Amino acid sequence: MNEKRKTSISWVEAERIYIRGYRIEDLIGRVSWGEAIFLVLAGRFPAEQEARMIEAIMVSVVDHGVRPPSTVAAVTVANTGAGLSSAVAAGILAINEYHGGAIESAMHAISRAVDLRQSESLTEDEAAEAIIRAYRKEGKRVSGFGHRFHSSDPRVTKLFEIAESLKIAGKYVSQARAIERVFVERFNKKLPMNADGAIAAILCELKFPPVAANGLFMASRIVGLIAHVIEEKERNLPMRTVNVEEYEYEGELDKKLDELVDLTNSGQILKTK
Amino acid sequence: MNEKRKTSISWVEAERIYIRGYRIEDLIGRVSWGEAIFLVLAGRFPAEQEARMIEAIMVSVVDHGVRPPSTVAAVTVANTGAGLSSAVAAGILAINEYHGGAIESAMHAISRAVDLRQSESLTEDEAAEAIIRAYRKEGKRVSGFGHRFHSSDPRVTKLFEIAESLKIAGKYVSQARAIERVFVERFNKKLPMNADGAIAAILCELKFPPVAANGLFMASRIVGLIAHVIEEKERNLPMRTVNVEEYEYEGELDKKLDELVDLTNSGQILKTK
Amino acid sequence: MNEKRKTSISWVEAERIYIRGYRIEDLIGRVSWGEAIFLVLAGRFPAEQEARMIEAIMVSVVDHGVRPPSTVAAVTVANTGAGLSSAVAAGILAINEYHGGAIESAMHAISRAVDLRQSESLTEDEAAEAIIRAYRKEGKRVSGFGHRFHSSDPRVTKLFEIAESLKIAGKYVSQARAIERVFVERFNKKLPMNADGAIAAILCELKFPPVAANGLFMASRIVGLIAHVIEEKERNLPMRTVNVEEYEYEGELDKKLDELVDLTNSGQILKTK
Amino acid sequence: MNEKRKTSISWVEAERIYIRGYRIEDLIGRVSWGEAIFLVLAGRFPAEQEARMIEAIMVSVVDHGVRPPSTVAAVTVANTGAGLSSAVAAGILAINEYHGGAIESAMHAISRAVDLRQSESLTEDEAAEAIIRAYRKEGKRVSGFGHRFHSSDPRVTKLFEIAESLKIAGKYVSQARAIERVFVERFNKKLPMNADGAIAAILCELKFPPVAANGLFMASRIVGLIAHVIEEKERNLPMRTVNVEEYEYEGELDKKLDELVDLTNSGQILKTK
Repeated sequence: MNEKRKTSISWVEAERIYIRGYRIEDLIGRVSWGEAIFLVLAGRFPAEQEARMIEAIMVSVVDHGVRPPSTVAAVTVANTGAGLSSAVAAGILAINEYHGGAIESAMHAISRAVDLRQSESLTEDEAAEAIIRAYRKEGKRVSGFGHRFHSSDPRVTKLFEIAESLKIAGKYVSQARAIERVFVERFNKKLPMNADGAIAAILCELKFPPVAANGLFMASRIVGLIAHVIEEKERNLPMRTVNVEEYEYEGELDKKLDELVDLTNSGQILKTK
Repeated sequence: MNEKRKTSISWVEAERIYIRGYRIEDLIGRVSWGEAIFLVLAGRFPAEQEARMIEAIMVSVVDHGVRPPSTVAAVTVANTGAGLSSAVAAGILAINEYHGGAIESAMHAISRAVDLRQSESLTEDEAAEAIIRAYRKEGKRVSGFGHRFHSSDPRVTKLFEIAESLKIAGKYVSQARAIERVFVERFNKKLPMNADGAIAAILCELKFPPVAANGLFMASRIVGLIAHVIEEKERNLPMRTVNVEEYEYEGELDKKLDELVDLTNSGQILKTK
Repeated sequence: MNEKRKTSISWVEAERIYIRGYRIEDLIGRVSWGEAIFLVLAGRFPAEQEARMIEAIMVSVVDHGVRPPSTVAAVTVANTGAGLSSAVAAGILAINEYHGGAIESAMHAISRAVDLRQSESLTEDEAAEAIIRAYRKEGKRVSGFGHRFHSSDPRVTKLFEIAESLKIAGKYVSQARAIERVFVERFNKKLPMNADGAIAAILCELKFPPVAANGLFMASRIVGLIAHVIEEKERNLPMRTVNVEEYEYEGELDKKLDELVDLTNSGQILKTK
Repeated sequence: MNEKRKTSISWVEAERIYIRGYRIEDLIGRVSWGEAIFLVLAGRFPAEQEARMIEAIMVSVVDHGVRPPSTVAAVTVANTGAGLSSAVAAGILAINEYHGGAIESAMHAISRAVDLRQSESLTEDEAAEAIIRAYRKEGKRVSGFGHRFHSSDPRVTKLFEIAESLKIAGKYVSQARAIERVFVERFNKKLPMNADGAIAAILCELKFPPVAANGLFMASRIVGLIAHVIEEKERNLPMRTVNVEEYEYEGELDKKLDELVDLTNSGQILKTK
């Protein structure tokens, strides 16, 4: 009754599994997990620096304590005796417009500013101001700026540092910084760039498809959600209301990465990869 | 009203984000995404070979065509106009006992056989037979063996090859192979090991916590689900019933990995990493 | 850190449960389930005829065979060994813009036509035409008209018949019929009103809050989803692809309601309630 | 590739919709929503008293303030900008073994006690004690007894009162009360019967299929969840952590049902239906 649907992601026949046209056995062990993610989501292999950048992005948002709504939803469901996939799915459902879902819209805002700068021969600050005013007029806010906790987000600093050293940072990163600066200087608003904003600027540089950008966040944060669900099921009695103010960290903080050498007996794990 | 909950996964204070006790800015760009996953889920840094092995596992199950129930659920929901997180969550909900969820139970079966072999001084084949009989008596089947499509699963061959070359394969891999062999030789059942079974054997070697094993599958397959959801929303009209028999692959198959060199202009992406 | 959230739905203290301000023990056994639904969702008790109308609406969409995407998603997830709530949740996730979610938008379209008719002193047909043209111009379609299967939907006929007999049908029902007529007469499109459209027109008459309208569909269809999930888990082996073309009905069709009398030995169940 | 699946719930052909074999147009407006739920879930029409009893049960669990984990999950997801179906689905995912999911297991415990009493010629109290001891030995607890808030649950009292007046209460209700009594008298545990326990005892009397029992809870509570999700989206700013201790009720409490007469101008709505 329906016409055939077409697919370009993967294909399976007896004893054959293709991912984006490549045989699975050619990929396993030869490409990194970051390269595979890029291949599946963007439809092409990343260059070496692109793969490093994507992995840095994935690492940066893998978890963020007990407060994010995705964590609260997942832990709350886990506490009712739900299975792993139910609780994790509840967490995924919380990744939306206002949580983790701002990367795509921040990409649009930054691109729009860059396009405007070029088409109207503006400076970066003028383009930033024009975009902020345009969004206000449309009753929207520019995603990717402002954070509830961090007045300076350590992830932003580090991601941009890496983007610079990998020679990925270009006009989009620069434009994103202009927006942050213009918010303070011309609108008197302290809205420091958040991780969504920094990731958006970098993904613009990589020409990563915006429609898949929130997917990167999801594919990273699911790892944190899984850990929280397992922890909740192992440690806590059922039917105890989750209150994010009532958590204590258990364990050492400020561990040094040098210790890793001992842990792994390899000395290579901290490669500047 | 509740006592404080304790958490050991991550911790957030103003301008500080810790993952398993490490500062996020020490991890970003220095550890691979596979290392970060291992750190978050298993609670410790993997050795170099362990990290490579985990990435090979993640790559192996990233997607599997249009037929898996998780893909059907995700695409079906995507087709109703749902957002990305809704459709992906529906896919995650299908990862259960019979789909992707067999890794944990296969780990238990394989470990139990290894323990039995040691405590009763049996051969691997005797232990395999004992376990198969024990499971039958309990009315359960041994997870990780048998596949609807593949009489020989290319992922299994490749994962074991890598486990050998990284010197990770040991008594658990050997025991898993004994179970496959004994199914044929003593029970006359052709139940070739599937990806769940192979991954389970390898995770036993890595002393990976079984409770987090299905999480690895989920954290990998979510990438495939995201791609399918985006594809469905971009290509197909709403409210068209999903029929897995009615798909066509669009694009080139049997692409060669050598082509990657040209794509990336780096020559390094195919590092034997 | 947050201000207090306010709630007006229900409130619980030791030994006290209030629903919309009423004590639960005053409601149990005194109000029908349809009245309770109306109370909770619309925030007020319905009049007798309103309660009957709402129950008729709930009955009309309780299930619709094996084809709706919500059913496919629920059954697909059930088939993986998921628990009841996981599989039902997957079904709920499929209730969206294009499936079950059209009631709210159809309410807006019909109201807009009625408002236009009044403000511009138009006939119903003129208002219908104006709205259809306005939606086209905005690149949207008027929800509630057209169905994949039914060229004349038996639910629509019956719901309007009841709305007439309860003296609920008024200008909104009349306007909805005008839209259907004008689609044929002035646009040459056969787009018969579907259940979403009829329910929307009737809910406009009841001044039911549009934001809760899709909720009525959800609260009805969940009953069908639960039945499908239980059936799937009881009858079918796991990991068998769901194909909606491959179903057979098992049991008697065209049962007569007179038989009910015998079934119940009461003779009262078919009250014209 | 698969054999045909069989279904007995509903069936759709062009212009024909059957529910459990009845034409939809014969049901709409003639059966109450409670009768329809019973028909779909239990597969048969309820007698008049059974329908009243089911509606009383549905009304009793329609909502329970802001604390239940299903409400927390739904509101948390709603607060991220999710759509109605996403947020409601997250709530449904929290209905599990320890929340709303105890009805089925309480039915098994009560039935087992009744069976034991009959097969071993025990008194109700002896059967109750035997079951409590048996569950302890199996490391399980008897579901349906004990509540975090209510030392005497108003829903239990009222449901049993109605079950008595409808002549539905019999050996199962009596046995459930014996279990509550024996917990105090022989085990020195104050574990008052909760709504799950009372509903379980009554559903045993109705021979309602235990596998569908949790479904009744879900089909009722979804109405409360929908209301909470809409309230959250209308009243609160996004990304504000949900804390169940920080809610205030807004509106009148202890409303009198007599007021309903004025509201509805019918005087009939409080029929002893």
